[in-house]
Amino acid sequence: MRAIIKASPGAGFEVAEIPVPTLQPNEVLVEVQAASICGTDLHIYNWDDWAASRIKPPLVVGHEVCGTVVECGANVTAPEVGDFVSLESHVVCNACSYCRTGQGHLCVNTRVIGVDRDGGFAKYIAIDAQNAWPNPPDLPLEIAVLQENFGNAVHTAFAVDLRAKKVLVTGAGPVGIMTIAVARAIGARSIYATDISRYRLDFAVRMGADAAFHASEDNVIESILTLTEGEGVDVLLEMSGAPSAIDQGFSLLKPGGEAALLGVTPGPLTMDWNHHLVFKAAKVAGISGRRLWQTWYQARGLIRSGAVDLSPMVTHRFPLEAFDQAFAAMASGESGKVMLTP
Amino acid sequence: MRAIIKASPGAGFEVAEIPVPTLQPNEVLVEVQAASICGTDLHIYNWDDWAASRIKPPLVVGHEVCGTVVECGANVTAPEVGDFVSLESHVVCNACSYCRTGQGHLCVNTRVIGVDRDGGFAKYIAIDAQNAWPNPPDLPLEIAVLQENFGNAVHTAFAVDLRAKKVLVTGAGPVGIMTIAVARAIGARSIYATDISRYRLDFAVRMGADAAFHASEDNVIESILTLTEGEGVDVLLEMSGAPSAIDQGFSLLKPGGEAALLGVTPGPLTMDWNHHLVFKAAKVAGISGRRLWQTWYQARGLIRSGAVDLSPMVTHRFPLEAFDQAFAAMASGESGKVMLTP
Amino acid sequence: MRAIIKASPGAGFEVAEIPVPTLQPNEVLVEVQAASICGTDLHIYNWDDWAASRIKPPLVVGHEVCGTVVECGANVTAPEVGDFVSLESHVVCNACSYCRTGQGHLCVNTRVIGVDRDGGFAKYIAIDAQNAWPNPPDLPLEIAVLQENFGNAVHTAFAVDLRAKKVLVTGAGPVGIMTIAVARAIGARSIYATDISRYRLDFAVRMGADAAFHASEDNVIESILTLTEGEGVDVLLEMSGAPSAIDQGFSLLKPGGEAALLGVTPGPLTMDWNHHLVFKAAKVAGISGRRLWQTWYQARGLIRSGAVDLSPMVTHRFPLEAFDQAFAAMASGESGKVMLTP
Amino acid sequence: MRAIIKASPGAGFEVAEIPVPTLQPNEVLVEVQAASICGTDLHIYNWDDWAASRIKPPLVVGHEVCGTVVECGANVTAPEVGDFVSLESHVVCNACSYCRTGQGHLCVNTRVIGVDRDGGFAKYIAIDAQNAWPNPPDLPLEIAVLQENFGNAVHTAFAVDLRAKKVLVTGAGPVGIMTIAVARAIGARSIYATDISRYRLDFAVRMGADAAFHASEDNVIESILTLTEGEGVDVLLEMSGAPSAIDQGFSLLKPGGEAALLGVTPGPLTMDWNHHLVFKAAKVAGISGRRLWQTWYQARGLIRSGAVDLSPMVTHRFPLEAFDQAFAAMASGESGKVMLTP
Repeated sequence: MRAIIKASPGAGFEVAEIPVPTLQPNEVLVEVQAASICGTDLHIYNWDDWAASRIKPPLVVGHEVCGTVVECGANVTAPEVGDFVSLESHVVCNACSYCRTGQGHLCVNTRVIGVDRDGGFAKYIAIDAQNAWPNPPDLPLEIAVLQENFGNAVHTAFAVDLRAKKVLVTGAGPVGIMTIAVARAIGARSIYATDISRYRLDFAVRMGADAAFHASEDNVIESILTLTEGEGVDVLLEMSGAPSAIDQGFSLLKPGGEAALLGVTPGPLTMDWNHHLVFKAAKVAGISGRRLWQTWYQARGLIRSGAVDLSPMVTHRFPLEAFDQAFAAMASGESGKVMLTP
Repeated sequence: MRAIIKASPGAGFEVAEIPVPTLQPNEVLVEVQAASICGTDLHIYNWDDWAASRIKPPLVVGHEVCGTVVECGANVTAPEVGDFVSLESHVVCNACSYCRTGQGHLCVNTRVIGVDRDGGFAKYIAIDAQNAWPNPPDLPLEIAVLQENFGNAVHTAFAVDLRAKKVLVTGAGPVGIMTIAVARAIGARSIYATDISRYRLDFAVRMGADAAFHASEDNVIESILTLTEGEGVDVLLEMSGAPSAIDQGFSLLKPGGEAALLGVTPGPLTMDWNHHLVFKAAKVAGISGRRLWQTWYQARGLIRSGAVDLSPMVTHRFPLEAFDQAFAAMASGESGKVMLTP
Repeated sequence: MRAIIKASPGAGFEVAEIPVPTLQPNEVLVEVQAASICGTDLHIYNWDDWAASRIKPPLVVGHEVCGTVVECGANVTAPEVGDFVSLESHVVCNACSYCRTGQGHLCVNTRVIGVDRDGGFAKYIAIDAQNAWPNPPDLPLEIAVLQENFGNAVHTAFAVDLRAKKVLVTGAGPVGIMTIAVARAIGARSIYATDISRYRLDFAVRMGADAAFHASEDNVIESILTLTEGEGVDVLLEMSGAPSAIDQGFSLLKPGGEAALLGVTPGPLTMDWNHHLVFKAAKVAGISGRRLWQTWYQARGLIRSGAVDLSPMVTHRFPLEAFDQAFAAMASGESGKVMLTP
Repeated sequence: MRAIIKASPGAGFEVAEIPVPTLQPNEVLVEVQAASICGTDLHIYNWDDWAASRIKPPLVVGHEVCGTVVECGANVTAPEVGDFVSLESHVVCNACSYCRTGQGHLCVNTRVIGVDRDGGFAKYIAIDAQNAWPNPPDLPLEIAVLQENFGNAVHTAFAVDLRAKKVLVTGAGPVGIMTIAVARAIGARSIYATDISRYRLDFAVRMGADAAFHASEDNVIESILTLTEGEGVDVLLEMSGAPSAIDQGFSLLKPGGEAALLGVTPGPLTMDWNHHLVFKAAKVAGISGRRLWQTWYQARGLIRSGAVDLSPMVTHRFPLEAFDQAFAAMASGESGKVMLTP
């Protein structure tokens, strides 16, 4: 079958012809209908320090995937052949103390497709049956393919109480924008966004932000203090990993406020621990992956009710082989999600 | 001044001319601009057992009130003369252990205006300054007057987690209908309503319910099981106090589901304790009044953001003196809220 | 092998010789070292209405079991042969929405050993590997055998916030008494117990209650109001299922208080819904089984730290064949836990 | 009256004769029976940067105080003359949005006695009546005087779930040690402590720690990993403000673990944001002051039940005038709490 692989250490990917994967008894074989590109894929493509330390080539890349079940392992009872599924990228062990207490997203034996084992930029992917989440047959590809990434947004937004609250979302990349849409859907009073791309700021407003500010060119602090009558925001959703955005975000957070942290910083972070956390009595939650499988049920609910409309999110479409163009679009800062089809 | 009073034990009210109240140092005098009728007022009007045991005539009735501050007691720092305010009807002591731990709605020394002390169906009312909640000057009377009652809806809906959940609201009187609107605003996936008035069922759908059923004429259980793929609902918001509705509601509640109870039953209730609560691992919260003052801040957030639009709620308007017609409208089952203006 | 079975509908059990169970690939075979008797077993022994409707003879009874793993099915990775284990009695599917969201105790496909499938009053039992909880090899049998039942106590006590709180435990049977010990260990300020057996009231005080009252012979309400300076209790742990105890418990519960309900009533319950739940703003949680597997981790923590000492709980020991004596001891109201050894 | 004052900018305090304070209508006059020294007092004594920026001399210092009410302002209903009280040091406004929503500890108008207004190292202090917390008349001075500081420990320990959990307390000064005692009382499974004073490590073990390590001389990480079977701790209570302790603490925190932060760092902190917060999905709560007045009720419960015994905490006693010796004892690292009596 055709697949996009990291063949050896170094930048870039290659198209390769490789065997169709064979199934373990608890796995299903999924024929990929669409995949989308995540920031993580970009790190692997560019072969940065993180990628060099984590990835063991050769590897089929890609972890945001939807497709059709075409074969089921011997022990699989669900899903069934023919089901249209989206994939949860984290394959967990079901046996560690985290898995056994409803904290599967923290499984110590997690293996991520496209990172630790072969992924989904390919004709087929083999994956544990429990990771294949059934969709309605008529769910558009453009939405089905986003569910794994949308799950990050849902997990972040649901980690805090947004109801009737003033919210700042720092970082308006695709996950940030989807988080804005979720925040709107679950009753945030006001949503402010920051980013360093005007394209994304416009996108954020279209998807539900009340106001969006350029993190370095606009006067973010003053503007948001004015909008909040000098009080700041009740909740910070930190999606950027940018040290300056983190500082702005916590500066604007009200005493007793909540913060959810998804953004990954480029290195150690220096911060005003006392004023941003201790004296402020901030409540902070780091966000990792998706709640297995609570987040998937929640995402389903938001999509099916129409509370969140993800249809504007995919802005670029390419055939799988045009991955170089796809990654260029993704890196431009002027895209939503970029979708690949085999 | 003119006031509507319960002059003596027995059914009905009277118009009376009484002195303008004098102020305590911590009170404000409010010139009433509008008042609305609550189910409680109907009990007092009809002089049922509860009313006979609680009410000590003569009493100015009415507890849903908005108006303008016209005088401030010596110790009052806020609000100020000229402010447009809505009134919290529960006057609390600030000194008991409930008041001192953020549970003022459970204050053991609570006195309710229009019930335990003079109320607001009058030209003026004197009330503790902290009970006068400032509104924007341009908030429509039809919305300002509802805030106390809307607070019951907010308190109920915020007592559970509705995000991406399937919800049943039993009882579509005005509070039930406003609760539906709140549930919609804070991300409920599906909202089902029951009542015994077709008028109210239609109203419930207009305000956000996905489907509404006549509690005795429709096949509620079967219909909602079908709509929920046999699973039932995640959350029950019980606003009726009707024993049959409570039984339907808990029958439809999923294991591990949440219920908030605002409805008052006509007497002791016989229920299937084991299946409805214990085996089902239900989580149930009784709802009393509004959280002081958290609910008011939340209500403000929902109204100002536009997440909830209360403008359809007032369906009938009468001058204060036409209270008999107003109570007839209220008792008809074919009204939303009924507003009185002095 | 030798087993205690319900051979056919009707009261009583029999000793029988039956084949050693054969293993499914995901199961382990456990050689039973000890078992203990639960109230549920008494219902089955007596063949009451519930038992007649649920139990399908012939059935090996017994669900509180510890023993040694002597054989592992083909797919089992843990535990290992030789491990000393206690059994979780609820075998769950891992596939339903409850199992997939950390709510396995509510699994819609639950099958309970000794109730829905063969149990552990026998030489051997076959059970899903995940249900065999590894113990330290030196854990006394008298404690290992109690863990399943102790888990009910932990689940109940952990469902509410007991820290620095005044607590009433209605029902001082073995689970109630263990709940008292947990409440003491996790910081309850005062613990009051009620029961209708003086033996159990004494036991409750030995295990940590500050005071214990006979539910029908003592003046429970007045006594506890006096002890709580007229305020009542912050938390009710309802372990009796007795209608009068439920009424006493909710009468004594403070406004805003929490209640956890484990006790099963003999039939529909008539209660003062308005005063006990709605006006009081009570927060109530039905308790079913144990959290899988969180409760087991919590129970392990309490036992290993020495915070809870269960060693006084087993008061009677019999060989398996002396089950009639054992059930008589259990039914006497003058026992703690009754242990059987094959 | 005699008082210890900061007369002018610079190090040290002075004894002064000043007028007895006059009362506002909502205040009480308390005759001080005992006071104790806090780390904050040491900052003011030493006149560090923080003190220089915050303190406006002349000022009576001291904020941990107990004594007897000798006079009540005109509007005071409780406490009464003769009552034995401990003082909450944070005087709050009751009017801001924090005070109005049960978050008085975050009041934007807070004024702290001994910091922002005259304190309690004096014969008398005037303070808002609500800040005078009534004690039983026979509560020992050595315990009554500690309640304000003990409240920090209670607030910290109650901000997380410690039940059956493994806990690391970084920083074993007096508040850290009292936090250990609270953690023990509310069911922590294991408690590990770190500090850089062997005296304090011994003290920590006496007050309930299972093991205590010198933060720089012992191999903290390896030791605690060994004790926790390689897993680390469920909860971190950070009481030191030392950057190295914070790093150790978060390194040892399990994924999904909780941290409460009371310690104040000497300046901006550089930390591994990604691994310590984001990927780890840590839940972190900054701790400020005491919950008004919930913490006081909780502290009362722990003390009265005997769950926490504070009697070993005061290790040094001096007359008020011997404040220089008292501060030397406090600064030595070889003390518990230091008590002053007028």
